[in-house]
Amino acid sequence: MAALARSVLVTGSNRGIGLELVRQLAASPQAPQHIFATCRDPDGQELCLLSPTINLLKITINTVDLPSIRRAVQVVESCLEGQGLNLLVNNAGIGSHATLQSVDSQEMLAAFATNVVGPLQVAKEFLPLLEKAAKGAQTTRLSCSRAVIVNVSSKVGSIGLCLGVLEAPMYPYRASKAAQNMVTRCLAAELRDKGILCTAIHPGWVKTDMGTEQAPMTVERSVQGILAVLGSLSQETSGAFLDWEGNSLPW
Amino acid sequence: MAALARSVLVTGSNRGIGLELVRQLAASPQAPQHIFATCRDPDGQELCLLSPTINLLKITINTVDLPSIRRAVQVVESCLEGQGLNLLVNNAGIGSHATLQSVDSQEMLAAFATNVVGPLQVAKEFLPLLEKAAKGAQTTRLSCSRAVIVNVSSKVGSIGLCLGVLEAPMYPYRASKAAQNMVTRCLAAELRDKGILCTAIHPGWVKTDMGTEQAPMTVERSVQGILAVLGSLSQETSGAFLDWEGNSLPW
Ligand SMILES: NC(=O)c1ccc[n+]([C@@H]2O[C@H](COP(=O)([O-])OP(=O)(O)OC[C@H]3O[C@@H](n4cnc5c(N)ncnc54)[C@H](OP(=O)(O)O)[C@@H]3O)[C@@H](O)[C@H]2O)c1
Ligand SMILES: NC(=O)c1ccc[n+]([C@@H]2O[C@H](COP(=O)([O-])OP(=O)(O)OC[C@H]3O[C@@H](n4cnc5c(N)ncnc54)[C@H](OP(=O)(O)O)[C@@H]3O)[C@@H](O)[C@H]2O)c1
Repeated sequence: MAALARSVLVTGSNRGIGLELVRQLAASPQAPQHIFATCRDPDGQELCLLSPTINLLKITINTVDLPSIRRAVQVVESCLEGQGLNLLVNNAGIGSHATLQSVDSQEMLAAFATNVVGPLQVAKEFLPLLEKAAKGAQTTRLSCSRAVIVNVSSKVGSIGLCLGVLEAPMYPYRASKAAQNMVTRCLAAELRDKGILCTAIHPGWVKTDMGTEQAPMTVERSVQGILAVLGSLSQETSGAFLDWEGNSLPW
Repeated sequence: MAALARSVLVTGSNRGIGLELVRQLAASPQAPQHIFATCRDPDGQELCLLSPTINLLKITINTVDLPSIRRAVQVVESCLEGQGLNLLVNNAGIGSHATLQSVDSQEMLAAFATNVVGPLQVAKEFLPLLEKAAKGAQTTRLSCSRAVIVNVSSKVGSIGLCLGVLEAPMYPYRASKAAQNMVTRCLAAELRDKGILCTAIHPGWVKTDMGTEQAPMTVERSVQGILAVLGSLSQETSGAFLDWEGNSLPW
């Protein structure tokens, strides 16, 4: 099996889905040459559990802090030594269970800042490196071995599937993930001609701090699925909204 | 023709589509008994052009200022003398033409504040009056003569139709209107059983300050369409995304 991508950057990789993504990528027989495991506090406990391998670099990115993103771009650029970045996984996100009764402006704006503005700013700042990867690729096909932006979204961000509002109101979370899907779609449309694919992926309902122990799926299973889907991305799935099994979800 | 609704409140009614909504409602042979024309500055020029009629009250609402919304609820409540509010039109909104290159966090969050949080907060604060109207209605059918929340949305907020990104990038505006559509849908699902209908309406591309002179449609024509669509709302269009001609749009 060929490597998914020569270089991968993951946000929010200190726990949950982000941590497991980095773990499985690093453990893969065809591991990427560069894995940039970014998080707010790279000295935090969990990420240290990863065996330090030559291709794994821990970098600070707080996705709502532009200077931290820009500093990370510089570090990544110098590590890549003239190559581009192939795969950016915008995984960092926050939940919010606010109901119509409890929701307030602050919680709404916090969800938008982390779940929408964060991924957009990260994509924007890493764009030159993604463009470099797209230009330098051996192929003209869109894929993770060329240049891809993955925005980790959620099924509850599907407006069309907006069911169960009373059981799981989550107004800020739902609204922010719908907005994030729009950003994914705009980026896909805008960047396709530059050779960069952009897609939204729902990881399933996963046992993490956010998903809670009630979730039916382990993080290992979810990430296995996500990585398989990432490996299958192509022109046809540019601007798509897929789940961890590759099924298409309605907006 | 029966009146569309006994009482109507419109936000952002000092110019553009909001002003014309209030104008046509007030001029209708079956005008609502109460029209609450709200805006940030009710002493502003344009709204004064409306002939003062007994059923038209100008009230201050800055949709991003919760205390102003709460003060307005008190004024409206006392005017309605024990009756509820039938129709809330969340019309106030701001545009944003930011491209991927020019977009920044501040412009994104400003769009979310006005175009998503604003309508949600207004709906939330007026909910007791809408519930009162829903309960007090002669009918159990959902309609504007019972209780309706209309969120003025936009076709460019359709994720499915996200085309022409390069000609009209508008990242903050698009993302905010997609998020607003999610809020519309959540409200529709949550409030249906309380007798309150909620729907998103795209007014068309209209000659206003926001739409510019390039827009193909006059504000008179758009508002005629919107009012006809409002008159036709029912159970079937609860949670729908309709244009000014009543056509359904994809999320
Ligand atoms: N779990 C599920 O069932 C589920 C379902 C659908 C979608 N998702 C999505 O999957 C993604 C990962 O979720 P998860 O389940 O792994 O959640 P999680 O266990 O709560 O982890 C969230 C991660 O995001 C990071 N993060 C939050 N804000 C950040 C910021 N400003 N800058 C950098 N990192 C930040 C957290 O870092 P800190 O430790 O510093 O807070 C943490 O690493 C999210 O986008 C989520 O919306 C999850
Ligand atoms: N025109 C179009 O082609 C078009 C197309 C699709 C959707 N729309 C939507 O239609 C709605 C009306 O747009 P328009 O074309 O009439 O725009 P407009 O002429 O620019 O008027 C916008 C209105 O919103 C008000 N507003 C903005 N922020 C506000 C706040 N915080 N509190 C209270 N009022 C506020 C403005 O009041 P101030 O005077 O105080 O700023 C003004 O009355 C918007 O939601 C817009 O997104 C318009």
